[in-house]
Amino acid sequence: MTTGPQPLALHDDRLFSSDPLQRAIARRLYAQVATLPIVSPHGHTDPAWFAHNAPFANATELLLVPDHYVFRMLYSQGVPLDALGIPRADGSRAEVDPREAWRVFAECFHLFRGTPSSMWLNHVFHEVFGLRVRLDASTADLYFDHINDALRQPGFLPRALFERFRIEVIATTESPLDPLEHHATIRESGWQGRVITAYRPDAVIDPEHEQFPSALQQFGELTGEDVHRWDGYLRAHRQRRAYFADMGATSTDHGHPTAATANLSRAEAARLFDTVVRGNASAAQAELFRAQMLTEMAAMSVDDGLVMQLHPGCFRNHNLGVFERYGRDKGADIPLRTEYVRALKPLLDRFGNEPNFQLILFTLDESNYSRELAPLAGHYPSLLLGPAWWFHDAPEGMWRFREQTLASGGFYNTVGFNDDTRAFLSIPARHDVARRIDCAFLAKLVAEHRMDEDEAAEVAIDLAYRLPRKAYKLG
Amino acid sequence: MTTGPQPLALHDDRLFSSDPLQRAIARRLYAQVATLPIVSPHGHTDPAWFAHNAPFANATELLLVPDHYVFRMLYSQGVPLDALGIPRADGSRAEVDPREAWRVFAECFHLFRGTPSSMWLNHVFHEVFGLRVRLDASTADLYFDHINDALRQPGFLPRALFERFRIEVIATTESPLDPLEHHATIRESGWQGRVITAYRPDAVIDPEHEQFPSALQQFGELTGEDVHRWDGYLRAHRQRRAYFADMGATSTDHGHPTAATANLSRAEAARLFDTVVRGNASAAQAELFRAQMLTEMAAMSVDDGLVMQLHPGCFRNHNLGVFERYGRDKGADIPLRTEYVRALKPLLDRFGNEPNFQLILFTLDESNYSRELAPLAGHYPSLLLGPAWWFHDAPEGMWRFREQTLASGGFYNTVGFNDDTRAFLSIPARHDVARRIDCAFLAKLVAEHRMDEDEAAEVAIDLAYRLPRKAYKLG
Amino acid sequence: MTTGPQPLALHDDRLFSSDPLQRAIARRLYAQVATLPIVSPHGHTDPAWFAHNAPFANATELLLVPDHYVFRMLYSQGVPLDALGIPRADGSRAEVDPREAWRVFAECFHLFRGTPSSMWLNHVFHEVFGLRVRLDASTADLYFDHINDALRQPGFLPRALFERFRIEVIATTESPLDPLEHHATIRESGWQGRVITAYRPDAVIDPEHEQFPSALQQFGELTGEDVHRWDGYLRAHRQRRAYFADMGATSTDHGHPTAATANLSRAEAARLFDTVVRGNASAAQAELFRAQMLTEMAAMSVDDGLVMQLHPGCFRNHNLGVFERYGRDKGADIPLRTEYVRALKPLLDRFGNEPNFQLILFTLDESNYSRELAPLAGHYPSLLLGPAWWFHDAPEGMWRFREQTLASGGFYNTVGFNDDTRAFLSIPARHDVARRIDCAFLAKLVAEHRMDEDEAAEVAIDLAYRLPRKAYKLG
Repeated sequence: MTTGPQPLALHDDRLFSSDPLQRAIARRLYAQVATLPIVSPHGHTDPAWFAHNAPFANATELLLVPDHYVFRMLYSQGVPLDALGIPRADGSRAEVDPREAWRVFAECFHLFRGTPSSMWLNHVFHEVFGLRVRLDASTADLYFDHINDALRQPGFLPRALFERFRIEVIATTESPLDPLEHHATIRESGWQGRVITAYRPDAVIDPEHEQFPSALQQFGELTGEDVHRWDGYLRAHRQRRAYFADMGATSTDHGHPTAATANLSRAEAARLFDTVVRGNASAAQAELFRAQMLTEMAAMSVDDGLVMQLHPGCFRNHNLGVFERYGRDKGADIPLRTEYVRALKPLLDRFGNEPNFQLILFTLDESNYSRELAPLAGHYPSLLLGPAWWFHDAPEGMWRFREQTLASGGFYNTVGFNDDTRAFLSIPARHDVARRIDCAFLAKLVAEHRMDEDEAAEVAIDLAYRLPRKAYKLG
Repeated sequence: MTTGPQPLALHDDRLFSSDPLQRAIARRLYAQVATLPIVSPHGHTDPAWFAHNAPFANATELLLVPDHYVFRMLYSQGVPLDALGIPRADGSRAEVDPREAWRVFAECFHLFRGTPSSMWLNHVFHEVFGLRVRLDASTADLYFDHINDALRQPGFLPRALFERFRIEVIATTESPLDPLEHHATIRESGWQGRVITAYRPDAVIDPEHEQFPSALQQFGELTGEDVHRWDGYLRAHRQRRAYFADMGATSTDHGHPTAATANLSRAEAARLFDTVVRGNASAAQAELFRAQMLTEMAAMSVDDGLVMQLHPGCFRNHNLGVFERYGRDKGADIPLRTEYVRALKPLLDRFGNEPNFQLILFTLDESNYSRELAPLAGHYPSLLLGPAWWFHDAPEGMWRFREQTLASGGFYNTVGFNDDTRAFLSIPARHDVARRIDCAFLAKLVAEHRMDEDEAAEVAIDLAYRLPRKAYKLG
Repeated sequence: MTTGPQPLALHDDRLFSSDPLQRAIARRLYAQVATLPIVSPHGHTDPAWFAHNAPFANATELLLVPDHYVFRMLYSQGVPLDALGIPRADGSRAEVDPREAWRVFAECFHLFRGTPSSMWLNHVFHEVFGLRVRLDASTADLYFDHINDALRQPGFLPRALFERFRIEVIATTESPLDPLEHHATIRESGWQGRVITAYRPDAVIDPEHEQFPSALQQFGELTGEDVHRWDGYLRAHRQRRAYFADMGATSTDHGHPTAATANLSRAEAARLFDTVVRGNASAAQAELFRAQMLTEMAAMSVDDGLVMQLHPGCFRNHNLGVFERYGRDKGADIPLRTEYVRALKPLLDRFGNEPNFQLILFTLDESNYSRELAPLAGHYPSLLLGPAWWFHDAPEGMWRFREQTLASGGFYNTVGFNDDTRAFLSIPARHDVARRIDCAFLAKLVAEHRMDEDEAAEVAIDLAYRLPRKAYKLG
């Protein structure tokens, strides 16, 4: 074991190849993208932060408790969630001194060696907080005090950080039931930061969500539509989409268990919806309804121009004991094998060649990159590939994404990086990793004489900045 | 954006590692294989080219219109197929000036950055046509004129190119219904180029092909057999296989949706065939019939010695709108997840240990390389592995093929490279990429002290030349 | 072809990157683990070797006949199993001079170029036997004589090799029906070598094993329990597990076709067992029974602390002709696509959060590393990841394992290396390969500034020594 505090450094060449030729090229490419503004078209930051601009509470509440990447690893090695103060399903919380929770984290920080969490966190410690010793048991208190002191400074308020991070635009994600009051507050505040929303209707689309009936009820109250009949339900979606678009949204997002789509007749869809509304839908009918709704959402996108995102293939809340005690989103979501070719055909049969339609596909099943997704995106004008996502947004995962999608999809059917995070302070770190990996990947192509360096420089800027602006209509 | 024409170069070390040690070894290995004759045992060039030796029409008709790798990428980024003059299903064609189509292509050439198409095309531009500036909007006309001028020279006639490319033997692919007249013409012409055929019976085997009934009718007329009865149908296959073998064929090729094989009794197979012939086959019966026919083809191979190739796992003509307007083979074929272990068992139970039987397996599902295909080929004497195919014949795909098949399959259960192309001019480029990647892969093994360099040199020659000759019985 | 004997060398830097920076780091990391004792928690050596300490017979019987990695490759290239003297199912054996078999092997040794077998064998030749020329046709006799001479020396007796190899502990694998007499002999002999057993109950759990009825009969006789009734059957398992634990076992091992688990009520399970015992189980019922038994084994592990290992996803004895003539385990086992997320849920719903329960998961389907296994192990406290296994324990496979599990699982949810071999002499070679690959992998992380070298050094020692001792409770 190491003894005492060790220095913490962020090397200028991190994530570049150690081959001197590739490294030199990567440096030159990176120099052109390092300070470009951050375009964050998909994420889960809380708009209330930017609406109210209140200080963050402390290191534990800011960096540990909300980050399931972090606490799932600790849990996997036997740390009880209660020891970290993770809130329970019933709203209660173990009485844990945040400093004690931070110490547990610090003692376990070696578990993250080599993982993206370690890279992101060290970036935050070093760049945001100016720390210069490594986190371990011996520096836990130093960290906790130092971070908490910083959080009381005006420079660490949400809007100040937003500006310091050079965020050009950030999208949050809201349910159709969300009044978007925080977005309205931001807009009315006169602050210039661009915080937009995205339409995420899963809660009012998934018949198997435990809150579907009450969500539907609310959906009707909010829109004044008869949402228990098919036509009214669709009208309610159109109405809310329009409101979201007014509040800056340029995209919708759909987190379904599979990529299944359907293309039912109006009468069939209405009948299915009746079954769903009556709470009588079987698992197969629930799946069919979600599938049909993807196609309905696509139809609305053709009309209103919102870019559609599909994030399928996750078994949510897999751990029964954790779900019962702590509820949803506690680090127990596990990827599933996912099929796209047959699943998307009904939707693509209708809208695959629509000039005004863009569907961005994500996957948690990397075996699809070269087999299904790159070939699909390399043919259909309506399809683009989202970046390496969630479990795969590590350097290795990003590299595999490029290696496995380049041949059939090229660079220009991809959309740049999504940070997809609620860990606000890590956003610069995550975009920096993505830019470095793309530059390292391009440097290899240049060093192996597959592309000229001037071309690679253009691609690097496209991936970091131009493609996300274009794909998400943020220009 | 770059301004004005940029130089076009093919670096001597392209595709080799930038690590100096690996690069030096790769150079030495490559020097031994660079100028070996091309053995092309599987492809789709048109035998009429070599029979009639007529000049190619122009750059667009030669390089753009027939190459679905190229136009699918343009289409994916919103270029209408009509703007390229792609023929429609009804035989009509948008009136497009080939020069205008070429300009569209040139303006979009950046879309191919990093893809194999860019490498192949630049190789053709540089090596075949002697161009020394990059293709872009500013050089589109220069390219179009230069290439068209060249195509009028005798050195650019098909046979002259065949010889210039040092092609030792090339296989085309024909249906059993093809009279092979072009092959006969070549043979009678006295020209020494070795152009052989391969037996591709899908059209008379797949009950779900829209032209199956008429193809069967023709099959009967051509062979004089009663092909609507099981015995006659099988005799017709044997007869045509013998004729193909007479015309040089050493192999058959089978492009089925799955790798399913079956082992029905004679009576069961005859009953199934009756159902198929009456047009009453369900999807499951059609699949079973294709499965049974693979085993029947294997039985014939045991007798006549034709090497069998299986190319499964593609969803053909996935884009409904494109299929309806432009017909088959318009860049909308998409790979499917594919299973081999259970699928092949019926066939292998009968012929897996036959000394006179060789089945070469291909895949579009790379997850099978290490899991199913290399272990199968590393055990069964009748099985060999075809190279990285179609969507996977890029440098990265070739590298993954070697990395994932080496441990269980070794080098000697693989069969060298297939170019599998109708883009005749790109054949040297494609073989060159394959040889370079194999040398780069071997150089890594040598540099990491897993193999001596004299062994690697032998393997390099085996992969480039000896193994395809042996596997396809072309020696 | 090379002419005459070539030198055989093991380079000090083998398997390290040829990049000078990475290589230098790898060397330093490796220096810390190169001579650590071997912890071999899972394998298939014969305890009789260590009990009786008799000399091995000859090169062919020691290195060729028992190693299906080796003879499957020869068989795949047309060498008959009889030519190697592989025993047949009926107990007979072709009369083959071991020297002749060895010559066949030597002539075919080039087939192994680049494979792990070649690396392991060359390590054995060089390090164990001191050979300094490469094996080929010209050196076959020299090898055969040299090895046979060595095997007659006291230094090549099993116990002497065990000590020379610095084996701290080795686990063998036995059926519940095994009396463990060899383990008893070892214990009584006073020899200090630690040879422990592991509980592998497949033969008395799998209703589809052809010897299940007789195995069950024996199981009852051995334990005195009424094993044809559910309660007695479970008691018999508990009794044998306790005996195995007495004989040093710290783990159980389960080689099922799939990872399916079940969670039936006691009454349902008892009814299912009755069906199984009567020999009436359908394929689905047999699968359900195996699934239920995994959960029962987990329940027993919670009580007795034996670590549970699950090795699913293999189609055993795929080659019908070879199975009929030569029986089981003749190199014809082929990996299958495997699912874990839904399959393990019943077991994990019961025991996934049990502090006293450890389940080590293996796979032959690498597509699961990043998709299912690393996310599962990176969340559940009860789950750990076994290393790259069987067809995947080559340098490339080990590298993929680390690359694809690091992000979600980290290093500390893995358990170090398993040699999983019956090829006793290759054990040091296999552990050396694993240590070198882990050091090379860590060196890349250090060279790319993702980890400091002092951290990497700690991880290297953890992976080579501390984690297997901890995961398998061998400390």
